Amino acid sequence: MSFRVAIIGAGPSGLAQLRAFEAAEKQGVELPEVVCFEKQADWGGMWNYTWRTGLDEYGEPVHASMYRYLWSNGPKEALEFADYSFEEHFGRPIPSYPPREVLWDYIVGRVKKGNLRRFIRFRSPVRDVAYDDASGKFTVTVRDLTNDHVYSEVFDYVVVASGHFSTPNVPDFPGLTKFPGRVLHAHDFRDAAEFAGKTVLCIGSSYSSEDIGTQCYKYGAKEILFSYRSKPMGFAFPEAFSEVPLLLKVEGKTAYFKDGISKDVDAIIICTGYQHHFPFLPDDLRLKTNNRLWPLGLYKGVVWEKNPKLLYLGMQDQYYTFNMFDAQAWFARDVMLGKVNLPSLEEMQADSQTYREKEESTISASEDIDFQCGYIRDLLGLTDYPDFKPEIMAEQFKEWKHHKEEDVLTYRHHSFRSAITRTMAPPLKTPWMQQLDDSLDAFLANN
Amino acid sequence: MSFRVAIIGAGPSGLAQLRAFEAAEKQGVELPEVVCFEKQADWGGMWNYTWRTGLDEYGEPVHASMYRYLWSNGPKEALEFADYSFEEHFGRPIPSYPPREVLWDYIVGRVKKGNLRRFIRFRSPVRDVAYDDASGKFTVTVRDLTNDHVYSEVFDYVVVASGHFSTPNVPDFPGLTKFPGRVLHAHDFRDAAEFAGKTVLCIGSSYSSEDIGTQCYKYGAKEILFSYRSKPMGFAFPEAFSEVPLLLKVEGKTAYFKDGISKDVDAIIICTGYQHHFPFLPDDLRLKTNNRLWPLGLYKGVVWEKNPKLLYLGMQDQYYTFNMFDAQAWFARDVMLGKVNLPSLEEMQADSQTYREKEESTISASEDIDFQCGYIRDLLGLTDYPDFKPEIMAEQFKEWKHHKEEDVLTYRHHSFRSAITRTMAPPLKTPWMQQLDDSLDAFLANN
Ligand SMILES: Cc1cc2nc3c(=O)[nH]c(=O)nc-3n(C[C@H](O)[C@H](O)[C@H](O)COP(=O)(O)OP(=O)(O)OC[C@H]3O[C@@H](n4cnc5c(N)ncnc54)[C@H](O)[C@@H]3O)c2cc1C
Ligand SMILES: Cc1cc2nc3c(=O)[nH]c(=O)nc-3n(C[C@H](O)[C@H](O)[C@H](O)COP(=O)(O)OP(=O)(O)OC[C@H]3O[C@@H](n4cnc5c(N)ncnc54)[C@H](O)[C@@H]3O)c2cc1C
Ligand SMILES: NC(=O)c1ccc[n+]([C@@H]2O[C@H](COP(=O)([O-])OP(=O)(O)OC[C@H]3O[C@@H](n4cnc5c(N)ncnc54)[C@H](OP(=O)(O)O)[C@@H]3O)[C@@H](O)[C@H]2O)c1
Ligand SMILES: NC(=O)c1ccc[n+]([C@@H]2O[C@H](COP(=O)([O-])OP(=O)(O)OC[C@H]3O[C@@H](n4cnc5c(N)ncnc54)[C@H](OP(=O)(O)O)[C@@H]3O)[C@@H](O)[C@H]2O)c1
Repeated sequence: MSFRVAIIGAGPSGLAQLRAFEAAEKQGVELPEVVCFEKQADWGGMWNYTWRTGLDEYGEPVHASMYRYLWSNGPKEALEFADYSFEEHFGRPIPSYPPREVLWDYIVGRVKKGNLRRFIRFRSPVRDVAYDDASGKFTVTVRDLTNDHVYSEVFDYVVVASGHFSTPNVPDFPGLTKFPGRVLHAHDFRDAAEFAGKTVLCIGSSYSSEDIGTQCYKYGAKEILFSYRSKPMGFAFPEAFSEVPLLLKVEGKTAYFKDGISKDVDAIIICTGYQHHFPFLPDDLRLKTNNRLWPLGLYKGVVWEKNPKLLYLGMQDQYYTFNMFDAQAWFARDVMLGKVNLPSLEEMQADSQTYREKEESTISASEDIDFQCGYIRDLLGLTDYPDFKPEIMAEQFKEWKHHKEEDVLTYRHHSFRSAITRTMAPPLKTPWMQQLDDSLDAFLANN
Repeated sequence: MSFRVAIIGAGPSGLAQLRAFEAAEKQGVELPEVVCFEKQADWGGMWNYTWRTGLDEYGEPVHASMYRYLWSNGPKEALEFADYSFEEHFGRPIPSYPPREVLWDYIVGRVKKGNLRRFIRFRSPVRDVAYDDASGKFTVTVRDLTNDHVYSEVFDYVVVASGHFSTPNVPDFPGLTKFPGRVLHAHDFRDAAEFAGKTVLCIGSSYSSEDIGTQCYKYGAKEILFSYRSKPMGFAFPEAFSEVPLLLKVEGKTAYFKDGISKDVDAIIICTGYQHHFPFLPDDLRLKTNNRLWPLGLYKGVVWEKNPKLLYLGMQDQYYTFNMFDAQAWFARDVMLGKVNLPSLEEMQADSQTYREKEESTISASEDIDFQCGYIRDLLGLTDYPDFKPEIMAEQFKEWKHHKEEDVLTYRHHSFRSAITRTMAPPLKTPWMQQLDDSLDAFLANN
């Protein structure tokens, strides 16, 4: 087949795209020429840990937002690949909430097996994508970091799989300029040990805030304050935690909050989420959205409606992750292979609008989960990606939500049954608060 | 005059370019259309402080490497503008070593007077510069951050004034991945208060290392280690400071150095300098150099030899700063106005090679200072920028070097005489170690 596909990013989404092509090849389909550009030196995307923050050794923004001692914050059973189970990878059942390195090992295990590394150009950030109406092709401009050289190549399709939890959303608060202590965004958080003995203020009331605050506590912080804009998380927290309204200002070390409360704090961690940021895309190809379950502009959440040769993976806010990316990548593959007949622009937009209205009508987390589940069910009907029973996982997500409300320090003690293998996960052998070494080796040896 | 000039950056160098055009206009010269693109929201370049680190509110790399409580590390008399003295700006003599905000005020004071802000598009990072051989023009692509919009415009000349102390050079050391404490580059250093009571390891033996280590000590750090690669700084340091060879590795909190020494440290600040980084330039327009007094490729340190419509300001390592940038900007202006007849490529390269050989033959800091002084003397002969007596300043730099060797905590107590106004600076009223409030107001009130 004589066309060329550029994939931007070798995280779970980009790797899913490679895996999707591999699966087609095994069925005898002739593949296009595929090049995956990855700015990091290794694959696995967000799961590839680095101690670096800010800019990397080449002056590129560091992609990683993950930190030391990070454990999955959802049960692994809900993100399991349909075509590669945890049991296949580890050779035995493991607990439901593994630390980062374990998940990284699992993600790359599947693509190692298929020798998919050969498609990837590492240390190759894409700098620019331009579409030429006349030729109907994209020019992709890349910086080869190893040789400090900028070059361009022409492609028929571009798949954007660059993630959207890497570029921090960092609001300003009056007084930060003179706060005598560390101020950072969650994106730059690395080692909780730095905050031992300190009173830490986390701004935001979502996953990062909860997990970073909890982790600082696990590694010795004295007190954790969570400052919310819309509403408190309302979990059962330990004594040392408290939820306060939105930060108004800081004066010296004193933080003032909306309802007149004030408190001296030693460090401020801004956990206010991330931006969809595509510095390499011109206006007319660029998805602009906040973090939500149904961004507009993408047919079936994947195809850039205004130019269907451009595809996006993993751009939704995520309950489902790895397996949803797979379902999307299989669909994107079939669009590129010409197996899917795309409807007209108007029809695609109408379809997206229907999803949007459904998304906007949900009023609880449970309904959000069901919404994303329904979307995946729709996708599964469009390709031959194995049915991984997203409905089972939806119930697991609801249970998980419930466990968190009961106790943020122990929700990871629960076990779930794999929808893929039907095996029940073993429990953690010691309480999560006592498992301080998060390495793959320690996790497998101790659990 | 019917041509267009793009200036990239509104720091001291870019502002010098605007000032140079203003000076020509006052002499009745018809000006080209000048647009200065500045990625920050305000002018003053590196001197424009922000609490932000890593990426800013738009996802752009934060330019600032300056930190709270930073004071000039050289005497202000050696960087004084020829056409706008400190005395003119402040209405009275002030001490020789002012804090950052005072210098920022001085830099922007000159351009405020000329109403030069109207030439600048703020929040406008240049993303790409492409030269078209056929038309002989540059297409400059810019991201308008305010409107999240990318656009291009065509220019006849481009002046690169984007600085080269912003993109950190960050080597790796074995064990940093598991170091239980903060690891950062000097670029991300902001408030020394964070390190109070700690043992801090600064890697590097140049300005940043010395100044950041000293500042941590001033604000309460317990102990400072400086780790050098080539040679120790050899200044007279206080008790709590020590110089150690290059870091080999860290294991837990223990840092191991080259000669078998080891030491437990709480934080690691990597002060290993900066990269010349121009992500917006293609290979053939891009200066590639390490930080040195004579990078090759720039005729008279300014004109891109391979395409003299491209000009660079401030790209040398710097003893002289603001007034050298002025001398360069005046020369760049005259090149653009057609007042300078540039020699052939070969002649330009030969001229640069002569400087390079001179640069390479220097063997002491004094000779380096004289080399840069000689270069400026040459430049001053080429334009009508007022002669600011760089030779007087060269002697001041040599004295300053000597003061630092005597005592890093007191060298800022010395006073120098302005080569511009011939006024002697008053001394600091209280020792620098006791001046903890670095604001403009406090400095002027207390000195
Ligand atoms: C702190 C944190 C914790 C998380 N924890 C969990 C969890 O417990 N469970 C879970 O399921 N999910 C979690 N997630 C969500 C996580 O983002 C997804 O699991 C997954 O990594 C998304 O995959 P992706 O491939 O879409 O994006 P990413 O994993 O972000 O990968 C994108 C890749 O694109 C590359 N890239 C970016 N720009 C360019 C460019 N210009 N040129 C070339 N390459 C580029 C990047 O280097 C990266 O490798 C977490 C996210 C964060 C931030
Ligand atoms: C920590 C530190 C301390 C220093 N202390 C001193 C001192 O005491 N005395 C002294 O004389 N010098 C000092 N310097 C040197 C300082 O760099 C110079 O004084 C001066 O700021 C250099 O001016 P510049 O205009 O060349 O670069 P900068 O001041 O760096 O300005 C460059 C400008 O270009 C903008 N820019 C960058 N990229 C883009 C883009 N793509 N598009 C649009 N705009 C862009 C930036 O936002 C910035 O405003 C210090 C430097 C550092 C890092
Ligand atoms: N494995 C793990 O343990 C782990 C840990 C961290 C993160 N993650 C993952 O990382 C992803 C991102 O999570 P996230 O929590 O960073 O982002 P997020 O879910 O998008 O939440 C952003 C939070 O910031 C708040 N916010 C935004 N702007 C604000 C402002 N100007 N002022 C005050 N508050 C503001 C939001 O408040 P409102 O509610 O008012 O909008 C919200 O609470 C998720 O996929 C999550 O699962 C996983
Ligand atoms: N106003 C102030 O107080 C102030 C404060 C800080 C900085 N500044 C300014 O900022 C600018 C930059 O100064 P800087 O000190 O950051 O940079 P610099 O002068 O370029 O020095 C870089 C230092 O890093 C070392 N280094 C580089 N790579 C290394 C590696 N891989 N391993 C170990 N060491 C390594 C170098 O050692 P070698 O000698 O072995 O090459 C050198 O000591 C200067 O203009 C300075 O005046 C001013």
